[in-house]
Amino acid sequence: MLENIPETFLNTSNREFRVLTAIENKMKFYEWVPIEDIAAFTEYDIKETGRILSTLAEKKLVHRKIATYEGYRIYFEAYYLLALKAFVERGSVNAIGDLIGVGKESRVYSAAGGLTGREVIIKFHTEGKASFKKVRIKREHIEDRKHLSWLYASRLAAKREYDVLKLLYPEVSVPEPIDHNRNAIVMSVLKGQALAHTKVDHPEWYLDEILEQVKKAAQLGIIHGDLSEFNIFVNPHGCELIDWPQYVTFTHVNAREMLYRDVENVLTFFKKKYRINKDIEEVCNGIIGSCQIK
Amino acid sequence: MLENIPETFLNTSNREFRVLTAIENKMKFYEWVPIEDIAAFTEYDIKETGRILSTLAEKKLVHRKIATYEGYRIYFEAYYLLALKAFVERGSVNAIGDLIGVGKESRVYSAAGGLTGREVIIKFHTEGKASFKKVRIKREHIEDRKHLSWLYASRLAAKREYDVLKLLYPEVSVPEPIDHNRNAIVMSVLKGQALAHTKVDHPEWYLDEILEQVKKAAQLGIIHGDLSEFNIFVNPHGCELIDWPQYVTFTHVNAREMLYRDVENVLTFFKKKYRINKDIEEVCNGIIGSCQIK
Repeated sequence: MLENIPETFLNTSNREFRVLTAIENKMKFYEWVPIEDIAAFTEYDIKETGRILSTLAEKKLVHRKIATYEGYRIYFEAYYLLALKAFVERGSVNAIGDLIGVGKESRVYSAAGGLTGREVIIKFHTEGKASFKKVRIKREHIEDRKHLSWLYASRLAAKREYDVLKLLYPEVSVPEPIDHNRNAIVMSVLKGQALAHTKVDHPEWYLDEILEQVKKAAQLGIIHGDLSEFNIFVNPHGCELIDWPQYVTFTHVNAREMLYRDVENVLTFFKKKYRINKDIEEVCNGIIGSCQIK
Repeated sequence: MLENIPETFLNTSNREFRVLTAIENKMKFYEWVPIEDIAAFTEYDIKETGRILSTLAEKKLVHRKIATYEGYRIYFEAYYLLALKAFVERGSVNAIGDLIGVGKESRVYSAAGGLTGREVIIKFHTEGKASFKKVRIKREHIEDRKHLSWLYASRLAAKREYDVLKLLYPEVSVPEPIDHNRNAIVMSVLKGQALAHTKVDHPEWYLDEILEQVKKAAQLGIIHGDLSEFNIFVNPHGCELIDWPQYVTFTHVNAREMLYRDVENVLTFFKKKYRINKDIEEVCNGIIGSCQIK
């Protein structure tokens, strides 16, 4: 090989040079540089990087080895802490209190925030956490990024919910969104109690109030998508609709059906518990007529 | 753990948060993030990083695994190519020719360089290459960086030689240094032939000429340190001293001894081959007297 430098040089492509440079650089940190690091440095994908490395190995320019290393990843719980750390650092939270609610895909904590020490809540999204463990056992390769599914899923859900709350508040009676980081949202304290767990004195008034909020959201182009007696909070002055990460917009192909389902859930609950009958067609047509649903 | 967020948060130090952030970031690239990557990101050393990770693992915030990966490193030959690539990219070399010399710790190629296509040579240093293979089998840990010894050794030697040539040229008759990268130097073509492999017509004149160059270098504060009939080139107009990576300066504790040894090698050669006798004390005193050796 030493005698062949000119020829080898001419037969080495720019992409091969980039891979060699990547390895040379990363050798400061590793005895054996992981293919993932080479791919990240070169910005070629793993498959392409692997192909180039095979050619280089044939030419005896790189030496390949299956090596072992001590590797780490964070548990879901660490993700909570990192989000909380971010809130504390930018002052939206300065004290965290008790766990006050556990949903199917969320955990809610009481907290104090801002300069005024105003009482707030932190909602941590946990979408994907359950499925994560199953996934983890099955997969071995890095390309599909499934090892990040819980992280992406929970971050995406929190971002979606924060964005829609920003859009709806204060026109629609929803919690005030205060801050967002990773899988967590800081928002105002929920007012009252879940409709499912309380008995109201003037159910007709509350039913109208709830449908009015559904209509206001629809007029802003948003349908809750998962509305039920569990995410409608009632208080002496009205109601508050919560848990919005599954919302759809009016451009969604199923927008009309989802509005029907939301309204149907509400009407069914009031019919069963308070014996109030309202025609679903009439209610939905009233909402749709007041806005531009397709 | 989920119920313990406030307590866990308070018991998590800033250094622990930095390690968690490092892992979170690197999880984009790895299913299991290598400890070396975590250390590089945090800028804590491996030992400290390992200590923090152990605490985090106890707290169930990180998950540890001994994983396997596909790792690479470059062969020495690739290092030549990378140096050559750098020369070509900045125009100091635009064609490489034959291997024209093989030393104990170097390889020399003919080449054409610059806009004028001037004939030059490229000297690749290979210090440490031989010992590299032995080292490689023995070591396993990354900390001592021994896996880079050949790379460091050859780069250091090339840098040393380039710097000293820059200092000596053109006052002393040495090759003109043109460019330097990694383990390689571009320089002017050597004039003539090695003293060891030729027979000169006027040996007294050549001996004086050589000693004159040794003195001029000494006046600039530099002693060759490895001078012999193999790295003195002679041509019809004079001589050229080459191979300077082992030079010492006058501040070196053995400066005087090394000057004596250089002179002794030269005098011994001329005595054996040309029957010329010169007193070493007299020669060395002459050189030392003309400069500030200690």
